[in-house]
Amino acid sequence: MIIRKKLNWFRMLFVWRGSVLPEILPRLIALFLLSSTVVYFHGELFHYKIPLNIAPFTLIGLALAIFLGFCNNASYDRFWEARKLWGGLLIDARSLTRQALTLGDAEKNHADIQDFVNLIIAFAYALKHQLRQTDPGEDFQRLLKPEFAKSLETVKFKPAIIIRELGQWIYRNKKEDKIDTIVQVAIDNNLNRLSDILGGCERISNTPIPYTYSVVLHRTIYIYCFLLPFGLVDSIGWMTPLIVTFIGYTFIALDAIVTEIEEPFGVEKNDLALNAICQTIEDSLGEMMGKKIEKKPLDNLLIID
Amino acid sequence: MIIRKKLNWFRMLFVWRGSVLPEILPRLIALFLLSSTVVYFHGELFHYKIPLNIAPFTLIGLALAIFLGFCNNASYDRFWEARKLWGGLLIDARSLTRQALTLGDAEKNHADIQDFVNLIIAFAYALKHQLRQTDPGEDFQRLLKPEFAKSLETVKFKPAIIIRELGQWIYRNKKEDKIDTIVQVAIDNNLNRLSDILGGCERISNTPIPYTYSVVLHRTIYIYCFLLPFGLVDSIGWMTPLIVTFIGYTFIALDAIVTEIEEPFGVEKNDLALNAICQTIEDSLGEMMGKKIEKKPLDNLLIID
Amino acid sequence: MIIRKKLNWFRMLFVWRGSVLPEILPRLIALFLLSSTVVYFHGELFHYKIPLNIAPFTLIGLALAIFLGFCNNASYDRFWEARKLWGGLLIDARSLTRQALTLGDAEKNHADIQDFVNLIIAFAYALKHQLRQTDPGEDFQRLLKPEFAKSLETVKFKPAIIIRELGQWIYRNKKEDKIDTIVQVAIDNNLNRLSDILGGCERISNTPIPYTYSVVLHRTIYIYCFLLPFGLVDSIGWMTPLIVTFIGYTFIALDAIVTEIEEPFGVEKNDLALNAICQTIEDSLGEMMGKKIEKKPLDNLLIID
Amino acid sequence: MIIRKKLNWFRMLFVWRGSVLPEILPRLIALFLLSSTVVYFHGELFHYKIPLNIAPFTLIGLALAIFLGFCNNASYDRFWEARKLWGGLLIDARSLTRQALTLGDAEKNHADIQDFVNLIIAFAYALKHQLRQTDPGEDFQRLLKPEFAKSLETVKFKPAIIIRELGQWIYRNKKEDKIDTIVQVAIDNNLNRLSDILGGCERISNTPIPYTYSVVLHRTIYIYCFLLPFGLVDSIGWMTPLIVTFIGYTFIALDAIVTEIEEPFGVEKNDLALNAICQTIEDSLGEMMGKKIEKKPLDNLLIID
Amino acid sequence: MIIRKKLNWFRMLFVWRGSVLPEILPRLIALFLLSSTVVYFHGELFHYKIPLNIAPFTLIGLALAIFLGFCNNASYDRFWEARKLWGGLLIDARSLTRQALTLGDAEKNHADIQDFVNLIIAFAYALKHQLRQTDPGEDFQRLLKPEFAKSLETVKFKPAIIIRELGQWIYRNKKEDKIDTIVQVAIDNNLNRLSDILGGCERISNTPIPYTYSVVLHRTIYIYCFLLPFGLVDSIGWMTPLIVTFIGYTFIALDAIVTEIEEPFGVEKNDLALNAICQTIEDSLGEMMGKKIEKKPLDNLLIID
Repeated sequence: MIIRKKLNWFRMLFVWRGSVLPEILPRLIALFLLSSTVVYFHGELFHYKIPLNIAPFTLIGLALAIFLGFCNNASYDRFWEARKLWGGLLIDARSLTRQALTLGDAEKNHADIQDFVNLIIAFAYALKHQLRQTDPGEDFQRLLKPEFAKSLETVKFKPAIIIRELGQWIYRNKKEDKIDTIVQVAIDNNLNRLSDILGGCERISNTPIPYTYSVVLHRTIYIYCFLLPFGLVDSIGWMTPLIVTFIGYTFIALDAIVTEIEEPFGVEKNDLALNAICQTIEDSLGEMMGKKIEKKPLDNLLIID
Repeated sequence: MIIRKKLNWFRMLFVWRGSVLPEILPRLIALFLLSSTVVYFHGELFHYKIPLNIAPFTLIGLALAIFLGFCNNASYDRFWEARKLWGGLLIDARSLTRQALTLGDAEKNHADIQDFVNLIIAFAYALKHQLRQTDPGEDFQRLLKPEFAKSLETVKFKPAIIIRELGQWIYRNKKEDKIDTIVQVAIDNNLNRLSDILGGCERISNTPIPYTYSVVLHRTIYIYCFLLPFGLVDSIGWMTPLIVTFIGYTFIALDAIVTEIEEPFGVEKNDLALNAICQTIEDSLGEMMGKKIEKKPLDNLLIID
Repeated sequence: MIIRKKLNWFRMLFVWRGSVLPEILPRLIALFLLSSTVVYFHGELFHYKIPLNIAPFTLIGLALAIFLGFCNNASYDRFWEARKLWGGLLIDARSLTRQALTLGDAEKNHADIQDFVNLIIAFAYALKHQLRQTDPGEDFQRLLKPEFAKSLETVKFKPAIIIRELGQWIYRNKKEDKIDTIVQVAIDNNLNRLSDILGGCERISNTPIPYTYSVVLHRTIYIYCFLLPFGLVDSIGWMTPLIVTFIGYTFIALDAIVTEIEEPFGVEKNDLALNAICQTIEDSLGEMMGKKIEKKPLDNLLIID
Repeated sequence: MIIRKKLNWFRMLFVWRGSVLPEILPRLIALFLLSSTVVYFHGELFHYKIPLNIAPFTLIGLALAIFLGFCNNASYDRFWEARKLWGGLLIDARSLTRQALTLGDAEKNHADIQDFVNLIIAFAYALKHQLRQTDPGEDFQRLLKPEFAKSLETVKFKPAIIIRELGQWIYRNKKEDKIDTIVQVAIDNNLNRLSDILGGCERISNTPIPYTYSVVLHRTIYIYCFLLPFGLVDSIGWMTPLIVTFIGYTFIALDAIVTEIEEPFGVEKNDLALNAICQTIEDSLGEMMGKKIEKKPLDNLLIID
Repeated sequence: MIIRKKLNWFRMLFVWRGSVLPEILPRLIALFLLSSTVVYFHGELFHYKIPLNIAPFTLIGLALAIFLGFCNNASYDRFWEARKLWGGLLIDARSLTRQALTLGDAEKNHADIQDFVNLIIAFAYALKHQLRQTDPGEDFQRLLKPEFAKSLETVKFKPAIIIRELGQWIYRNKKEDKIDTIVQVAIDNNLNRLSDILGGCERISNTPIPYTYSVVLHRTIYIYCFLLPFGLVDSIGWMTPLIVTFIGYTFIALDAIVTEIEEPFGVEKNDLALNAICQTIEDSLGEMMGKKIEKKPLDNLLIID
């Protein structure tokens, strides 16, 4: 995810990085060339005039508006729900740390609580790696006890096992009478929330917007764009390539954004900054445990994940 | 439900499987033939010119947009809520398992907890079978004690009885002093959530979008499409069949998708992958109980349910 | 509420029962006759040509779209929220029954729990009768103890008093030491949810969509429809009656649906099947208490409430 | 708030009371007169023809639709959320009363609980008076102990202090060992909900829709309406005043509704019936405490608040 | 944030302060001058006629509507969610204060509770300063103990550390047996809510609407506006500058509002009145602790933050 400093309205017109323009440029050029050819031949194909005007496009526009509007909203909802879940992870991680520090018996040593906190941080990394299908090995070795890290290797649902481990940490403390049942249940409650976050991310990741929507939307947009020059050439002549490319730009760009943010856990430029969030969790929990955190360039608003 | 690998924008134009095209093709062909006939007779019916132009279609388009937009959103909301409920089932199943493993007295033997976990898995299958009106017998025999499986046969609301059984398992543990009241209530809380999921699925399954909406939407779409050639023939001549079929495709496809995902628990190609979710629940709980899970082809993104 | 088996797209065009067509037919006939008269006189009124064309209707259409879209969404939200509340009632009734069966002391006899369950069922019927302003006497005599049923007669907010009675049942059990405070509070929590459902239904029932919306929407639709023939007659001649009736059908039908589902607790054909839900609650709780339930024709998908 | 009996579609066309027509009539008359003048002079201003046609209005219509649709939804959401909060107040008031009656020690006398219930009722009135900026003195004297009513006079956030007082009532009962900590916390939980309701109402009341929206919406609507006659006069001649007034009616009426329900706590005719809700709370709690309630004319559907 | 007294519809047309007009005026003037030039040259550029008419703008309008509608809704949702979070902060601050006053042991002295309340107030200020990236030093010195204020200086996530401190206050009270575990957990629950508020604000502040949306929206609006005179000049002649500026005003104003409220924590005129909310929290908690509050000009509806 790329976050940029806010630009004024004028400079925003010429932004290149972070927009979808680089990605869709070839298609726009193709559209421009096609339109120019159509203008050159006055809308004729093999000396046979294509009898189109602008009216049918208004009718198609209707269906297009419904499709685009829906797909865009559905994609953004997925993006924003995913962001909420990861925001919730930070919240919950802090709450669990606070509970470990203040609800239990103060006699239990700091190192034991650090283990607990490391498990929480490991959960965040495990979730990130599962969603991006990357290898969590390195992060686990840094954060977990060797034997547990080892045992996770063959496990399919890694984050779920880490939550179970968190539960067992609490159970151990309960057995050693460091906390009572009421506190145990209060912490367990926040483990339920961790479980909600895990399940929510899995749901978004495993269930795309029904495939047919994308197919119909794609077809409608591209047929629309490539028929458009024939419909405009008679009324606006040599302006056709410019206008068609402009209209095509708005539709194709929107379609490209929709496709990109539909899967918010990827590493494309509009996807969520999972690395940054994991780092924030690690920093914030560390700080609560009494560590000093050096301010990272993460704050200066140009994040690339 | 069919989930496919992501295609690039160009190859997506020619997708066949997983789109609604195969289903609606006959209607589109009928529409194409009708339009061609209209063109051939220059919009005359028994030598009597039908005086239509494009203007009225803009007006009808308005109502159509409201109907289509609404029905589409309502259907997708049902689909997505159903998905959330089943996602919640996975979450809740894991939470209950974790609670059974870590909240209670560790002395109680592993086999007893396995019974509890089997009941949870059986709940998932029971819900699936109730929603699809299929026979749960086989799954029950695999998972439940014979006498209980037997007693379920004559029961109408099977999942509700399984929840009661889960409650009784907890009650038994409480009576044997393996857990105290606080823990009992904490687990009971998650049984409330199971009950929410059950009730939510029943609600979606038993209450379709009010029937009148579908009827009016259907009539509007088909009358619109079959009048359209008469309105276009004078202005775009022999392009009429192509354009009418294209416009018809967008509307009829959307209507078909809406009808399909309105009932998300079916077995059509855009419905929810309930089999896969049940399998995931079984795998994940198994893993939490210490079993090894072999990675299934479920991961390689072409799921057919 | 009428729920029908799913029809294929073609047969759906000719549905009569369960659609709003019967209700609005007279208005459509009036519209057809008016349009025919307008065609006959070529849009003149007392030999004075009405100078209308289609353009102003596009402008009015804009406001109409906002109004119709909004009223439709608001109505459906009310309908669906009402359905959720009644679905929640089934869920909560089951949860309370489960809690009575498994959280308390098993020594307390079955008859006492049956009283509790009957109170819950009576709550459902009381709510139905309050919302439909019908007489709950018969159902109360079947379910409640005579003296309590008698005392409810003069009561204005009957369901609220039944919830208080449920609370007192729990209090009695607590005093007799059959349950402890923790369990009492856990059950009380679900009584809070019953209270939420009651309050939610009262809210929907007592607060319609602000009256002005309906008035403006109505006026706009009918003025629009009855001016339309004058706007179309010059351009589409004798097709005017057909097209005007078709356009009028879509708007008037939508308006009729909106009016119908706005009050979801009535007994019109698109309202909620409260009788069926009450019956389901009674059946499901009975089954949890160990009764055999005969499968009712309720399942075969043609429910008339 | 005025709630009327449901009228049939025809009589609804001629409703006067409860619609916004009386309020906006002067503006519509001005619009009608302007349009008539424009027709009389054939769209000329000082013999200078204004060259407008309908096309630009379609373009402006787009922005108008976005603004109107948005402001309308945002306003209605505020209205409906406010209604939900007040519905929640009734729910919560009942729950607290039930808890006071059934969770505590039955030995404590009825009068003490009546004090608690009076505090709840006083909270409702205090909230109403705060939102409408009226004087709560009279209601407080009727419901509260004199010294506490006195002490509230100089207080700025009155409802917040009443919630604190409710908390202290519980604390007193706890200290006298009439309830234990678990029950205390359960009741405290419902006090949290009271606090939510208070905060929610304050939020809606203190944060209007950003002012700029209203300004731009207003300007767009009125400039649109007063330019419209010049755009229509050439094509529909003497029908212009009728059509312009009709279009103006729909936009201006919607704008007026939006402005009215944006502040749902006022006393205009579409605002919430806070008096009636306060009365309902007082009646329902009274009934739960054993009082007889006479049925009020509140039920016969013509409420004026 | 500027909140103004409600104006009547007429005076609202001439509002200057608090509208976006001052900000966008230069762009509108540029648009007006361009349009005038286009009219002067009859739409020719270097004696070469630009062949544009209004039709393409209808097509572009479609995409524009989707973009503007979406960005506007997404921005307002952010604004309103941010407002809800800060409203929740007031609610939660009051609940925590009430709990400190009524749930614990009354023997603990008032000064200790005042420390707790000061921590809550400091949390509000800390959050404000973090979101606006300003220096909290002064507020901390006023509210916190010197050594703790000092230790916060080098901390990155200040509000999170304050929540931990609140937890430790409770823990201390628990250790000194002033409260029991149940109460400790009940208060801890409200700390979880504080944590939710913190995380929610961080999420909104750190994750803007994906950058590409703004870029495409901006480009579309400005290209649209600056092409528009060429499309209108042939049909409405010298009215072009007026109409183009009017249309441009609606689009550019909406775009400016969207940009402004997208970041609701800033200090622009439509952003949230965080100073006022912090003051309200301080006042309301003070009042609950028994202080007298003088009514501030905050009530007279012209807030500038």
